[in-house]
Amino acid sequence: MALPISRPSLGAMKRYFPILTWGAEYDRDTFVSDSVAAVIVTIMLIPQSLAYALLAGLPAEMGLYASILPLVAYAIFGTSRALAVGPVAVVSLMTAAAVGNLGLEQGTADYALAAITLAFLSGAILLTMGLFRLGFLANFLSHPVIAGFITASGMIIAASQAKHILGVEAHGHALFDRLGSLISHLGDTNWITLAVGAASVAFLFWVRKGLKPLLVKLGLKPRLADILAKAGPVGAVAVTTLLSFAFDFQGRGVSIVGDVPQGLPPLTAPTFDMEVWGKLFGSAILISIIGFVESISVAQTLAAKKKQRITPDQELVGLGASNIAAAVSGGYPVTGGFARSVVNFDAGAETPAAGAFTAIGIALAALLLTPLLYFLPTATLAATIIVAVLSLVDFGILKRTWTYSKADFAAVAATIALTLTFGVEMGVSAGVALSIFLFLYKTSRPHIAEIGLVPGTEHFRNIDRHKVLTHPELLSLRLDENLYFANARYIEDYILDRLDHDQPIKHVVLNCAAVNVIDLSALESLEELNRRLCGMGIKLHLSEVKGPVMDRLQKTHFLEELHGQVFLSHYGAMKALGPVNGRRPKLAAE
Amino acid sequence: MALPISRPSLGAMKRYFPILTWGAEYDRDTFVSDSVAAVIVTIMLIPQSLAYALLAGLPAEMGLYASILPLVAYAIFGTSRALAVGPVAVVSLMTAAAVGNLGLEQGTADYALAAITLAFLSGAILLTMGLFRLGFLANFLSHPVIAGFITASGMIIAASQAKHILGVEAHGHALFDRLGSLISHLGDTNWITLAVGAASVAFLFWVRKGLKPLLVKLGLKPRLADILAKAGPVGAVAVTTLLSFAFDFQGRGVSIVGDVPQGLPPLTAPTFDMEVWGKLFGSAILISIIGFVESISVAQTLAAKKKQRITPDQELVGLGASNIAAAVSGGYPVTGGFARSVVNFDAGAETPAAGAFTAIGIALAALLLTPLLYFLPTATLAATIIVAVLSLVDFGILKRTWTYSKADFAAVAATIALTLTFGVEMGVSAGVALSIFLFLYKTSRPHIAEIGLVPGTEHFRNIDRHKVLTHPELLSLRLDENLYFANARYIEDYILDRLDHDQPIKHVVLNCAAVNVIDLSALESLEELNRRLCGMGIKLHLSEVKGPVMDRLQKTHFLEELHGQVFLSHYGAMKALGPVNGRRPKLAAE
Repeated sequence: MALPISRPSLGAMKRYFPILTWGAEYDRDTFVSDSVAAVIVTIMLIPQSLAYALLAGLPAEMGLYASILPLVAYAIFGTSRALAVGPVAVVSLMTAAAVGNLGLEQGTADYALAAITLAFLSGAILLTMGLFRLGFLANFLSHPVIAGFITASGMIIAASQAKHILGVEAHGHALFDRLGSLISHLGDTNWITLAVGAASVAFLFWVRKGLKPLLVKLGLKPRLADILAKAGPVGAVAVTTLLSFAFDFQGRGVSIVGDVPQGLPPLTAPTFDMEVWGKLFGSAILISIIGFVESISVAQTLAAKKKQRITPDQELVGLGASNIAAAVSGGYPVTGGFARSVVNFDAGAETPAAGAFTAIGIALAALLLTPLLYFLPTATLAATIIVAVLSLVDFGILKRTWTYSKADFAAVAATIALTLTFGVEMGVSAGVALSIFLFLYKTSRPHIAEIGLVPGTEHFRNIDRHKVLTHPELLSLRLDENLYFANARYIEDYILDRLDHDQPIKHVVLNCAAVNVIDLSALESLEELNRRLCGMGIKLHLSEVKGPVMDRLQKTHFLEELHGQVFLSHYGAMKALGPVNGRRPKLAAE
Repeated sequence: MALPISRPSLGAMKRYFPILTWGAEYDRDTFVSDSVAAVIVTIMLIPQSLAYALLAGLPAEMGLYASILPLVAYAIFGTSRALAVGPVAVVSLMTAAAVGNLGLEQGTADYALAAITLAFLSGAILLTMGLFRLGFLANFLSHPVIAGFITASGMIIAASQAKHILGVEAHGHALFDRLGSLISHLGDTNWITLAVGAASVAFLFWVRKGLKPLLVKLGLKPRLADILAKAGPVGAVAVTTLLSFAFDFQGRGVSIVGDVPQGLPPLTAPTFDMEVWGKLFGSAILISIIGFVESISVAQTLAAKKKQRITPDQELVGLGASNIAAAVSGGYPVTGGFARSVVNFDAGAETPAAGAFTAIGIALAALLLTPLLYFLPTATLAATIIVAVLSLVDFGILKRTWTYSKADFAAVAATIALTLTFGVEMGVSAGVALSIFLFLYKTSRPHIAEIGLVPGTEHFRNIDRHKVLTHPELLSLRLDENLYFANARYIEDYILDRLDHDQPIKHVVLNCAAVNVIDLSALESLEELNRRLCGMGIKLHLSEVKGPVMDRLQKTHFLEELHGQVFLSHYGAMKALGPVNGRRPKLAAE
């Protein structure tokens, strides 16, 4: 007897395994497109993953491992057709900060184990958020905070790589620590290292700016030229490795990558020491949310170009699975990378299978190419990082926010300053807290406009901005905010203060068109206001109360105790209370 | 040559020294009223201040000291005519929790010094908040959180006094700790102590409920009867002290107050050990804000009854000065008490001078009466505390919030549960954090209504709730929330989802009557929405954009890039876009 597999359960399967949807339509053409994209992304990803592992303070091979199984996991669970997952700069920096907080030495087995554990915790957090649909939490990171954080992180990363370019020792978490340490070691500069590093930086910048026009001039199609230019880092790696081999850079004091174990990723497990978990948990939350935000932005941008949709809560599951995959295969925290996803998209990736094919490419590299990397100078990797992250640095956000909104400016400036001074975790946490506080502060002192009738219409506007009709016995106030605990007292005080000056007023009508919530604290303030106005011989009325707010008020005694009425429209209130057609209202602005 | 004393400087003096205002009008009648009120409050305050000092884990005399100089300081700097300052139950409990966190033993000199330091820090914080006009911070404590906190604190305080009634040892911060400890010591109950305690509790409850009607029946005026009933605790103190003396309670194992030093308050100073400051600072902030909120509520309620006004920021200065005064005169944190301020008001206090006269009364008590307190059983003081705080316990707030708003209910329930389980500091902090989070959560998923024209008016309402006119090519959406980072993406997704189902739509008009803020994140979402709609052949329009929001949009390129228009009123938009008078709009609700 066949068990009846019900449709809803297939739907649920498809929700959690998007591969079932696109996999069913997979054909030869898609395979070709995906494979081409995979080859190009693989070439781009090899030097990046080595470099970012070093940035995270980990052995280079962990970068390769983090670019294999996590990509396969994302291909199964992810909803974006173009997102390329793997180690990225900002998350690598945050990994170094988080594991550094434990007081572990870079390069030790404990340090690597902590990074694996961080990937595991981050994966578990992302999965939990996905299953409980908590993706909205990422919305509390405002655009200015993200922009400030990325800019500051880019600067810290670039500064952190300067030591590799100079061939000196330097330590520290935040920018100023690092720079101080760097300057004190400047005397130890290794000139060959500096030459390799500086030449690589110059070459990579030229590749970004000059190679594409050159290739186009040589007759290549612009898109192909663009993609080839992305392979620049591989060129730098190949050339400097050859030079290093030929001229014995190692013997001249140049730091090289050295032995990178050859083979597929090992099977690993995180530690289950609860003390370590406790110390890493806060960092894991930050890494998860930052990684998710970065990833979802690029995924949504690319999906929109092809009129596709992604499912944010399922993206959490996809990224969570990727990080768990990283933890069991010797990797460290991963997320969707901006630059490589754009390359993947431009190169023609049609489905997440492109990611799985990239994983095969990186696995082949881990199996076959690692011995060739022995002589690769770390200065070359540092150069690829510097060139990559400097494109993240965008001080334009300071100017844009300054013009538009001082609150947004304060959030971005504080995030940049605190990230540079105290490091990534403090910077982003303080930025989020500040942007929430500024929003609450603004709503705690709301704009309250006295309004009058725009002649010839039934529409009411601010008497200070428009020529409008008002009535001497009627005070019309538009409350431009939700009424809740943070502003309940302010609004009550404002209205009582306002009435101190105005003797002839008999009716106060509060226009509630902008009031979406009245919480219990505000309700108590309104009750008090109603009593106080009654004592002064003034009636309190409401107008344009919205459905959901009215539903709630009807559960209380407020509407019975209210001395005035509730009007559907403000015009209705004015018609009923201020005889618009009787005693002529004055034109307020005249 | 006389220096010109300018009027503004006198105004500033009057602002910071309200005594200059009421002192100038002080006369004989006011003096008599104030003196009568002071006598009554003094009688009420003597047992209370002893009892609350014991609740705070301090020697009884510190309660008296905290009721002398702080009252004088408030009389100079405070703006409320009726507020009676001194030790109060909740702040005493918070003091015990804060100093207990340092790991100090109750009754030691270090413990007392820490309490003095706490008063100093709290005073400094209140003064700073007053000078920088940060009183609005108190608004972030919502009414439900305060109600829940006070209820839970009342229960903890009552439970904490049970050991004195039973005559056993018991420790712990939160309710369940205390109860557990109490039960394990139940075998040690001292029966005489229990008899004194239980009889005092019963007597004090009877005083509250039965004495006033009895006195009225005996021919007293209701107001006088009410005030005399407040002196009940003094009767209990006198009778039990006499019994204790006559029957040698001390010899029978009953705990008595013992030696209370006779004399005026000593001159004291806080510690300036920064480590202690660091540990007490968080508690001092909580005590300051809770004390301020409690004090300002009663001050505003009483001021409203006489149509007086208080100045919240100057109240911070007044309470700050009181706490500094407590710190230099052997006291501990003080604030305005609810019950005693009401008594002060009812007894006819006209100016803050009543407080200064009360201080003289307490000073006389400290000079003359303390030897008489030697035999006073602590069980009697515990009984006065229990009866006083049980009136704070109000579970009705749970029902009120449940009916009105689940978010408010969640805040009050969490505050009560966490305060009972983890203590006062954790409880109130979590309550504040939760109520802010719930508000943000609500605003992050705003109500969005599709609206149509109410026939015969120019007013638009939700098509699901009203019979309204709509036009098939025109989608009118009212965004019921500020547009900011937490909901920017949600609104963008909502509108795009909505358009997936509706093919004929050519215009989307966003009614911005409820939008008071558009931050940079939301602006970027609107720009993206404009581009996406343009790609779908749909024009995006805005209507009823408020002045302050429009000012800001005009600083950007958004209005130039917008494919649609900005309309003053939504009716204007419909007239221009959906030919109301041409192709007939359908009645949506039919």
